[in-house]
Amino acid sequence: MDQQNKRKKKLSEDDYVNGVLEGNRTILAQTITLIESNSLAHMNSAQNVLTRLLPHTGRSIRIGITGVPGAGKSSLIESFGMYLCEQGHKVAVLTIDPSSTITKGSILGDKTRMDSLSRNPNAFIRPSASGGSLGGIARKTRESMLVCEAAGYDVILIETVGVGQSEVQVRSMVDYFLLVMLTGAGDELQGIKKGIMELADSIVINKADGENKIKALAAKAEFNRILHLLQPSTPGWTSKAYTVSALLSEGIEEIWTEILAFRQITLDSGYFQKRRQNQMIDWMYNMVYDQLKHSFMNHEGVKLNLRSIENSIVNGTITATLAAKNLLNIFEGTERGNLNAGD
Amino acid sequence: MDQQNKRKKKLSEDDYVNGVLEGNRTILAQTITLIESNSLAHMNSAQNVLTRLLPHTGRSIRIGITGVPGAGKSSLIESFGMYLCEQGHKVAVLTIDPSSTITKGSILGDKTRMDSLSRNPNAFIRPSASGGSLGGIARKTRESMLVCEAAGYDVILIETVGVGQSEVQVRSMVDYFLLVMLTGAGDELQGIKKGIMELADSIVINKADGENKIKALAAKAEFNRILHLLQPSTPGWTSKAYTVSALLSEGIEEIWTEILAFRQITLDSGYFQKRRQNQMIDWMYNMVYDQLKHSFMNHEGVKLNLRSIENSIVNGTITATLAAKNLLNIFEGTERGNLNAGD
Repeated sequence: MDQQNKRKKKLSEDDYVNGVLEGNRTILAQTITLIESNSLAHMNSAQNVLTRLLPHTGRSIRIGITGVPGAGKSSLIESFGMYLCEQGHKVAVLTIDPSSTITKGSILGDKTRMDSLSRNPNAFIRPSASGGSLGGIARKTRESMLVCEAAGYDVILIETVGVGQSEVQVRSMVDYFLLVMLTGAGDELQGIKKGIMELADSIVINKADGENKIKALAAKAEFNRILHLLQPSTPGWTSKAYTVSALLSEGIEEIWTEILAFRQITLDSGYFQKRRQNQMIDWMYNMVYDQLKHSFMNHEGVKLNLRSIENSIVNGTITATLAAKNLLNIFEGTERGNLNAGD
Repeated sequence: MDQQNKRKKKLSEDDYVNGVLEGNRTILAQTITLIESNSLAHMNSAQNVLTRLLPHTGRSIRIGITGVPGAGKSSLIESFGMYLCEQGHKVAVLTIDPSSTITKGSILGDKTRMDSLSRNPNAFIRPSASGGSLGGIARKTRESMLVCEAAGYDVILIETVGVGQSEVQVRSMVDYFLLVMLTGAGDELQGIKKGIMELADSIVINKADGENKIKALAAKAEFNRILHLLQPSTPGWTSKAYTVSALLSEGIEEIWTEILAFRQITLDSGYFQKRRQNQMIDWMYNMVYDQLKHSFMNHEGVKLNLRSIENSIVNGTITATLAAKNLLNIFEGTERGNLNAGD
């Protein structure tokens, strides 16, 4: 009753902050909606709320989970999340789905895909923000993660599909990165993006049950060979492969044991904290650089001349260096018009 | 005599253009020196000369060669270059050495490392430009490559050390990228950068002679297994590993056979031309974005506040989003001073 009343009236910044800190799930969800809003007033409010929540963030382990479609990420998160809740943890599941930028709607089935977990009072599941650039979606997910931490969630799972650029974004916001694969390494690998294995702190071969079990063990050996040849994703940590069955809930505990060992080692070496600090600062610079690019590409004079300058480069009538210089002059307003090169 | 006189007087832009087009090696070298100059007047002259040379560029195959120090790149280039000269080709060897930014001097031994090749009238060897950023060195190498093409060199070899960012730069300026490795894949691989194998159109296992031969063949099999698992660097081309001995000049012909096959396949598919066009345009954008970053990082107000804003992010008193916004406001001059977040 009380919550229904609250939902009807406009929340103040105090309401958001206090609600989140009390662990109120309704207000947690509303705060994330505020963060996802593209209205200027909402964005300002969201930053005010976030700034006040900042001192209460960071006390979690942030885990990224990626894999090609069909690798069984959802069923794995369902099993893993249920296990963590049984252990007394509070688990937040966030999704970065770049396709939601195109369809303007996110994976609608997120909650139904994780049926038991979505009904668990210690779990909070939120599908991907939709609309805007991948960078924009990633910002919203990072900030949603902070809000979940302030609300007391101590395990954050960020799921993404390992076919685009989103897994690089996820790697840059988590402590631990887990790649979910299927058996039959040789074929499946073709589907994953270049360099993605080198981002992983572990490779989990899913669906290691029934007739698949022998193939899964072979794939595990194969992946371990490859991981041995690659530089580790995290200094001081040896990435390795192991098998799980989300169906039979086998190997789930091992995932958590590995992550706890990882956390201990990186906390002891100081890399855990160092990575988080670097992630925050890098993120800030990336937002700055993205905005600079955006300003450049949306400058009227630049837009007007871009196509013809690209054509001149391709046709060999202007050097790339002069073309860049001309465009920068247009952008900086020091020279408009005359774009002929070489004189 | 004539050339000595020319060297003494200041060359006009006509002298540069005509000298290069005549294939005059002295003037070719002087033109590259002009391109490498950081003086504004020289940079303007260089762009004028380059623009006039542009219609005469592009008629070559551009080959990048990388590998860890000690992999035998120089001896391989010596053997390969001599073979090409014997086949009637004109070969230009350029180097990108990022360490030359630090030492302010390039690999002095470049010519002595390639003793026979440097004395061959159909070969032209030029060490890395020194000083400036890697981006600056890369620009100079790209433009030197164009000048060499205008001077009639039909095979361009660009050598770099595969331990930093330079091999990504080289990949972005060549048609074909060759990774030189040694036997004993497992150990050697540790030294090379993440993702570098995925840039390669072929892996050449060098020093496959004497007692090394058996190990080299084992390494070849191992690399072929890994390459099979990775996405190809060039669509339509299957990257593969093979063994050579620069010492015994064995396998050298096979390198060239492979490259000719690669050129034919990519010309037929249109990817050869498409990649070159994309490379030119991407390069232009990279120069623009680098310059935007440079302007930002060198802005007085930004420089003044950067450190304290970074600290505020790390200490959790400001969100990264607000920090980025504040810095952009400073840069754009719309707001100076007041940097307190959240109010």
